[in-house]
Amino acid sequence: MSKHLTKRSDNYSKWYNELVVKADLAENAAVRGCMVIKPYGYAIWEKMQSELDKMFKATGHENAYFPLLVPKHLFEAEEKNAEGFAKECAVVTHYRLKTDENDKSKLIVDPEAKLEEELVIRPTSEAIIWNTYKNWIQSYRDLPIKINQWANVVRWEMRTRLFLRTAEFLWQEGHTAHATKQEALEEAQLMNSIYAKFAKDFMAMPVIEGTKSESEKFAGAEETYCIEALMQDGKALQAGTSHFLGQNFAKAFDVKYTNQEGKQDYVWATSWGVSTRLMGALIMSHSDDNGLVLPPKLAPYQVVIVPIYRNDEQFNQISEKAQEIIKELQDHNISVKFDDRDTHKPGWKFAEYEMKGVPLRIGIGPKDLENKTVELVRRDTLSKSFIKQDELIDTVKQTLTDIQINLFDKAQKFTKDNTRQVKSYEEFKSLIETKGGFVEAYWDGTAETEEYIKKDTKATIRCILSTEVPESSKCLYSQNKAVAKVLYAKAY
Amino acid sequence: MSKHLTKRSDNYSKWYNELVVKADLAENAAVRGCMVIKPYGYAIWEKMQSELDKMFKATGHENAYFPLLVPKHLFEAEEKNAEGFAKECAVVTHYRLKTDENDKSKLIVDPEAKLEEELVIRPTSEAIIWNTYKNWIQSYRDLPIKINQWANVVRWEMRTRLFLRTAEFLWQEGHTAHATKQEALEEAQLMNSIYAKFAKDFMAMPVIEGTKSESEKFAGAEETYCIEALMQDGKALQAGTSHFLGQNFAKAFDVKYTNQEGKQDYVWATSWGVSTRLMGALIMSHSDDNGLVLPPKLAPYQVVIVPIYRNDEQFNQISEKAQEIIKELQDHNISVKFDDRDTHKPGWKFAEYEMKGVPLRIGIGPKDLENKTVELVRRDTLSKSFIKQDELIDTVKQTLTDIQINLFDKAQKFTKDNTRQVKSYEEFKSLIETKGGFVEAYWDGTAETEEYIKKDTKATIRCILSTEVPESSKCLYSQNKAVAKVLYAKAY
Repeated sequence: MSKHLTKRSDNYSKWYNELVVKADLAENAAVRGCMVIKPYGYAIWEKMQSELDKMFKATGHENAYFPLLVPKHLFEAEEKNAEGFAKECAVVTHYRLKTDENDKSKLIVDPEAKLEEELVIRPTSEAIIWNTYKNWIQSYRDLPIKINQWANVVRWEMRTRLFLRTAEFLWQEGHTAHATKQEALEEAQLMNSIYAKFAKDFMAMPVIEGTKSESEKFAGAEETYCIEALMQDGKALQAGTSHFLGQNFAKAFDVKYTNQEGKQDYVWATSWGVSTRLMGALIMSHSDDNGLVLPPKLAPYQVVIVPIYRNDEQFNQISEKAQEIIKELQDHNISVKFDDRDTHKPGWKFAEYEMKGVPLRIGIGPKDLENKTVELVRRDTLSKSFIKQDELIDTVKQTLTDIQINLFDKAQKFTKDNTRQVKSYEEFKSLIETKGGFVEAYWDGTAETEEYIKKDTKATIRCILSTEVPESSKCLYSQNKAVAKVLYAKAY
Repeated sequence: MSKHLTKRSDNYSKWYNELVVKADLAENAAVRGCMVIKPYGYAIWEKMQSELDKMFKATGHENAYFPLLVPKHLFEAEEKNAEGFAKECAVVTHYRLKTDENDKSKLIVDPEAKLEEELVIRPTSEAIIWNTYKNWIQSYRDLPIKINQWANVVRWEMRTRLFLRTAEFLWQEGHTAHATKQEALEEAQLMNSIYAKFAKDFMAMPVIEGTKSESEKFAGAEETYCIEALMQDGKALQAGTSHFLGQNFAKAFDVKYTNQEGKQDYVWATSWGVSTRLMGALIMSHSDDNGLVLPPKLAPYQVVIVPIYRNDEQFNQISEKAQEIIKELQDHNISVKFDDRDTHKPGWKFAEYEMKGVPLRIGIGPKDLENKTVELVRRDTLSKSFIKQDELIDTVKQTLTDIQINLFDKAQKFTKDNTRQVKSYEEFKSLIETKGGFVEAYWDGTAETEEYIKKDTKATIRCILSTEVPESSKCLYSQNKAVAKVLYAKAY
């Protein structure tokens, strides 16, 4: 495998595609638009899952599992949701293959095994879940229901990219049912803030929180809360969404409850999700021209030890020292890999771990044994230092903390430096075209303005920051009275 | 919800179906043959996953993720595997729905969105994975590959039952690639023994290890190792399988590697899996006419505390004591739930936790506060005792250990008592019909004998126990020279 990576400044998109493959995270599958998530990439996803799952459970949510396949009539029930996803549904029509009589080595779809009703592979699970909740909810005593599901979904996207947009992706989808509007609204907001906290604390990725405009919100939602992050190429990435669904699904599936006064009312709902798209956000937030850069809290291993030796005797001595260090690191809950392969030279290994974004690399050679030192290299800054072995644990602990903070600070500075206000629509156009980034501006609240700006500049309203605006504020484009302050950017 | 449960002795099958629903584990979904795994059931599955995952990782396996959808031509490649699964494949033929012009509220499959090649929802992933491994393997340096995947699969079963046989189920499937036959054989055996260990140590379920006969082995395997458990109704349940795949998939997908001598050879393979079927095995191994009985190591919560009070003052005093106890239990890694709902009476709660199989129930009433005691009830024996509060932690710890052991011992005694030898085929027939259970017998190794016995008695060869048999041993049915000692039973 060539370690050469296209530079970000030469072709950001190509850099990303190469990096995902060369860092051993994922690759395109034999199925159009789908991906294979390789062990190294999956290990990062597992860490994300584990942290998010803890945060969900700590806020009173439980996991469950609902079916992959949704009967068409259920899928149709909530009109807007159905309309929103109909164009990208994988549809199961048959339940059997049979031998092709013209070529016995081939299989054909058995026409006699046609389903009476087609099944849709879930693009999202509101329909199947609300059809189930219907039977679980009679009275206020059955509420709230706060369930999350870790699952795969399929959306037949035409233009796909590893992690960012794939026909099948992995995600979690929370689906909650509440007795009051207020409680459902608070839940939707809470989960969006949990996503923001996760992005910040674990991914070292600053995000902007806001709500979606009418045209960008989830099909079937009353309000969509979101977190948006700025990538190094100045484009925005929607990293998570949380929807207040009002009573739309309750009405579509006739889910009513009896309140404490004995009266019947429709149930209030939320849904919220993040997906393997977060992997794309993580990669693009921190990585550089040498490869992946991972925040220590999500790295499959935080430290790699590479032995540098000329002969078996040296190797054995170094291995012995390495084992001591490994034990100590593990005792301090630091994950470590010892690369003792004799099939590759140290230089090759250094390049590999740089590409894979391992936060810290420890090199140990014969000189280090003599001097009781090791070489320590930080992936984020690529800075080298020689550390006394008896100071190693403290230094490693401190440096991992520093890297986590440094990555966040760097990303936050980048986001701040690339979030701008403009004086005119012309300035806006030129800024979006030349520098990209976030632009904060006032909006008149019309779909026409939003649509015009999108066609004219490819920038979209990433989120509404506030609907409380000064009396005198005017729309960036129409110059009409503004109703909201919004964030514009080109987006993934 | 009625707490009444059909008795096992009246109708075992009905007892099982009712129990799964009443213990809040799962229910039938709106999609034919599929299930909704409810939070309480899913929490048990999560514990199983977590323990198995640790065991897989401890033996050098990594997790990854491969696509849900398999192009038909890949599915066809390994002939026996394709033939084995073709009859139960869900097939995706279209990628879009559109509005029905005759009824705008309905959606129909868009005939213009027909796929050029149909996609099969994975019934198992050998095809898609070996097509991927082909690109990962060039030389012996790339071997072994030891990957596991947690995923959903679909097999269009005609007769389904919650957990035991469902059209969609959750499972893990390990897929490994090796340079030598010996290494692959050892891997397949190792993973089967890990399944046996998991069944014993966590599920408290004794299993018999063996290999499958030709007719029962996995489609595409050279050898299928399995674990078989005996349920309380005398029927066997296949709880896990591990396959030595030989070079079958390597040949079908042309996966060769260059060995250390520079020669090319096909790669050797294994695959192994356990599924949500284990939930069915767990339920049937230990539960009784009062409901579910769970081994403490897999219980979502090991202890439930139920307050018994007449007024708010009593409730507050009891709650305070309960909080102390909860903290202490949690400090000792014992999971505990405090049921402080004021909507249900203690008696109702007792019945609910009995139904749900919570290993230990602690009751605290005003008298207990006075006497510094609590009431402790074991779910497995239903025995009650009053424990001094200052001895509670030690007693709980010890009792949880006792329950785990007791459940295993009981199940093992049952399996032993119901594993029999027979003197004649007539005795065999009568035994299978009247008592069920396992019957150990000699077999002549022919498919004819196996088939005859199956048709005549509904008993099948669950596994081959040994192929080293005394010179003089004769087949149970044909009286011809035996080649193996096997285990017969009727099976799920």
